[in-house]
Amino acid sequence: MIQVAIMGHGVVGSGVANIITTHKKKLFESLGEEIYIKRILDLREFPDSPLADRFTKDFNDILNDAEIRVVAEVMGGIHPAYDFTKELLKAGKSVVTSNKELVAAKGAELIEIAKNNNANFFFEASVGGGIPILRPLVQCLVANNVKEIAGILNGTTNFILSKMIDEGMEFDTALKLAQDLGFAERNPEADVEGHDACRKICILASLAYGKHIYPDNIHTEGITKISLRDVAYASEYKSVIKLIGDVKKLDNGKIDIYVAPMLIGEKSQLANISDEFNGIMVRGDCTDDVLFYGKGAGSLPTASAVVADIIDSCMHLNERKYIFWADSNNESVLPYNESRTRMYLRLDSPEAEDMVNEIFGNVYVIAKDEELAVATDLMTVADIESNIQKLERKGVKVLSKIRISDL
Amino acid sequence: MIQVAIMGHGVVGSGVANIITTHKKKLFESLGEEIYIKRILDLREFPDSPLADRFTKDFNDILNDAEIRVVAEVMGGIHPAYDFTKELLKAGKSVVTSNKELVAAKGAELIEIAKNNNANFFFEASVGGGIPILRPLVQCLVANNVKEIAGILNGTTNFILSKMIDEGMEFDTALKLAQDLGFAERNPEADVEGHDACRKICILASLAYGKHIYPDNIHTEGITKISLRDVAYASEYKSVIKLIGDVKKLDNGKIDIYVAPMLIGEKSQLANISDEFNGIMVRGDCTDDVLFYGKGAGSLPTASAVVADIIDSCMHLNERKYIFWADSNNESVLPYNESRTRMYLRLDSPEAEDMVNEIFGNVYVIAKDEELAVATDLMTVADIESNIQKLERKGVKVLSKIRISDL
Repeated sequence: MIQVAIMGHGVVGSGVANIITTHKKKLFESLGEEIYIKRILDLREFPDSPLADRFTKDFNDILNDAEIRVVAEVMGGIHPAYDFTKELLKAGKSVVTSNKELVAAKGAELIEIAKNNNANFFFEASVGGGIPILRPLVQCLVANNVKEIAGILNGTTNFILSKMIDEGMEFDTALKLAQDLGFAERNPEADVEGHDACRKICILASLAYGKHIYPDNIHTEGITKISLRDVAYASEYKSVIKLIGDVKKLDNGKIDIYVAPMLIGEKSQLANISDEFNGIMVRGDCTDDVLFYGKGAGSLPTASAVVADIIDSCMHLNERKYIFWADSNNESVLPYNESRTRMYLRLDSPEAEDMVNEIFGNVYVIAKDEELAVATDLMTVADIESNIQKLERKGVKVLSKIRISDL
Repeated sequence: MIQVAIMGHGVVGSGVANIITTHKKKLFESLGEEIYIKRILDLREFPDSPLADRFTKDFNDILNDAEIRVVAEVMGGIHPAYDFTKELLKAGKSVVTSNKELVAAKGAELIEIAKNNNANFFFEASVGGGIPILRPLVQCLVANNVKEIAGILNGTTNFILSKMIDEGMEFDTALKLAQDLGFAERNPEADVEGHDACRKICILASLAYGKHIYPDNIHTEGITKISLRDVAYASEYKSVIKLIGDVKKLDNGKIDIYVAPMLIGEKSQLANISDEFNGIMVRGDCTDDVLFYGKGAGSLPTASAVVADIIDSCMHLNERKYIFWADSNNESVLPYNESRTRMYLRLDSPEAEDMVNEIFGNVYVIAKDEELAVATDLMTVADIESNIQKLERKGVKVLSKIRISDL
C-alpha cells in the first residue's frame, strides 16, 4: 500500500479522490499495490464526503507524515502551492500537480529541488488536461529536434471562437454561454486574454528546448478584439481563427514564442479542433507533424492525468525520472518585434488598396467591400507595425491585425 | 557510452542508424551518455555506408558481444526475427522493435522472457509509426478504464480511400498511385486486406486490456470491395469510409474487436484523417476521447520511435519497465457474429424498400436511385446476415455492406 495526500478538493482534487476510489482495481493492476488516500488538505468542510475522516486544514499533517510518499497539489495559484510544494519536495516526497501557473512560474526551481532530494515533480495535467502530451514529448519524441509546437491550449477561448465561427455568435454572447456552461470562469481574463495559453506554451517550450521559458514578457494576445467580420473574412480566405500558443526554434538558436489568435487554413488539423477541445501539434524533424487531441480541462480528464502522475511517482519512489529543464532568464527568447509572419489586416477604407500595396509591397486582397481585408507577405512584426503607422498617418485605419499561420 | 546493435538495414533500420548518427547531441542531452552503434546485421553489402565497418552477416557477433546492451530488431517478419529476439532477451539484452507482425504473434511470450531476464522488450514503433501511442496508453491513460480504441492504423489504405473520396479515383488506380509513391508494397495484400491493421489493433487491445489478443480468428475485412458508389452514398449520409481497427470491452467482459471499413460521420475527428496519415482514438472513462495523429509509417518517423525505445532501454538497463500483458487463447474475444452494429447496405433494387423495412424493421433510406442504400438499426452481425439471406432469397442482391460507426 502506498499512502498519498491530495492538497485541494475543488474541481480537479475531488476528481483525483474520485478516480483513486472508484478505479481501485485498475490502479492496483498497473501498480501492483493499493493507493491509499491518507490526507486531503482543504480549508473548507466536507462532512458528507465518504473520505470525511481524511480531511485536514493543517499542511503539517501531510508534511510531517513520513508514511505519505506522494502528494497531489491541485489547489491552483502560486501561493501557498509554491511553498507547500517546495517543503514537500525538500522532505523527499514526490509532488504531482495540475497547476500550470506554478509550473510556468517556478518549474525550473522545483525540478531542481526534486532532483536534489531524490523525489519527482510531475505535471502532466498542467498542459492539455487529460491529453497525454508532456511524457510523449519527452519520451516518445526524444529522438526529434522539435522544430515547432503549436497548440490550441485553452478550451474556453476555443469554445467561444467555435461559437463565433459555427453559429455567428458575438464574442460577448459566446462568453456568457461559456460561463453558463461552466467552461469559463466568472472572471474570464486569464482565458480570454491568453494568459492561460501562455503558461502552457511556456511549459511545452521549456520541455522541448531544455530551458525554462518564463511567461513574463512573452507576447500574449487574447481574443477579445476578434469580431464576426474577422471571422467572415477568414472564412473567405479558407481559414478559421484559433487562439494559438506557438513556439519554434529558429536557425540562429532563438526561441520564437507567442500566444495570438491566428488564421489557420481549413485543411490544417488544428482547424478541425472545435468547441472546448484542445489540440497540440508537435513538428519533429523526424516525425513531421504529430497531433494530440482531447479535452483540455474538466474534473475527470484532468484528474486522470494527475492520477497517472501519482502512479508513475509510486513506481519511482526512490529514483528520479527524466523530466528536466534548466533555469534561464529568457535570454534566448526572440523579441516579438523580430518575429516573422504573414499578417491579415482589416482596414476601414476599400480605396486604400493601392496605398497598402505600395507600403507593404505585394499584398493578397481577401475581400474588398465596405472594408478592405488583405494578407501581407512574410515580414517582421516590426516592419508590419511601422507600415501600419505609415497607413494611419495617411488616414487609413487598421481595424484588426491577425497573424496568418502556415501550419 | 552505451553500445547498441541494429538488426536490419532496410527502410526503418537505415533510419535508425541515420538518427543515431545525426542526432548525437540531442540524444546525449536526453540520455547523458553517447549511443554507439557497434553492429548492424544485414545479409546485404553496404560498402558505401559510413558505418560499413560495423556490418555483419552473423547474428552471433551481436548475441555474443557482452558490450552490446540494447538491440533494435527492424528486420520485419516472424523468422528469423522471433528466434533472434528470444535469444537476445535470454542473454539479458533489451530488444526494441518496429515489427508488428512479431509483437502481434509473439508479444506475450517475448514480454515474459524479457521479464525473466531483467531485460526490456519495447515496441512503440509497431503501432502508428512515429505517433506516440503505446506509452501514452500505458502510462498517461493508466487511470482510465479504456472503453474503446478505434484507429486508422494503416496509411496505405487510408491513402487509397482518400483518393477515392477526394478525387473520385477508382480503387485500382489509387492503389497503383500508392505503389508508385512508395506508400504501398508491390504485394499490397497485408495492407488492403486489413491484416496490417489487425496486427496493430491486436497490440493496442492487448495493452489496454492486459491479455494478449492474437490476430488469428479476428474478423478482418479489407477495402478491396469498396466502390465509388459506396463512397458517394456515404457522402450523402454525411460520412466518409475509413478502414478502422476497433476494440471495445463490453459490459459482460467480452472483447469486441475487428478490422473493417466503416462509415464515419463527417464531424468525427477520425473523418479528418486523410492521405497516408494515421489516427488513433482512445475512449477512456475519465478522459473521454483522446486522439493521436501523425505519420504511421516511413523511414524517419518509424525510426524515431525505435530510437526513443532505445533511449528508454538505455535508461533502464538493469530494471524492468511496466509494459506488460498476460498470455491468453483469445477466449475473451466476442464471436464476430455477436458484434452489434448499424450497417450500411447497398441493394440492387430500389423497389425493395418495403421488403427491406419489413425484414430489418425500420431502416433509414440514404438514397434511392438505380440502387437502394439504407442504414439499419443497431443489431448483431448474425441478425444482419440472416436478414440479408432473407432478402437474397427474395431476389434482392446486397451489393455492399459496411459497418456504421458511432465514433
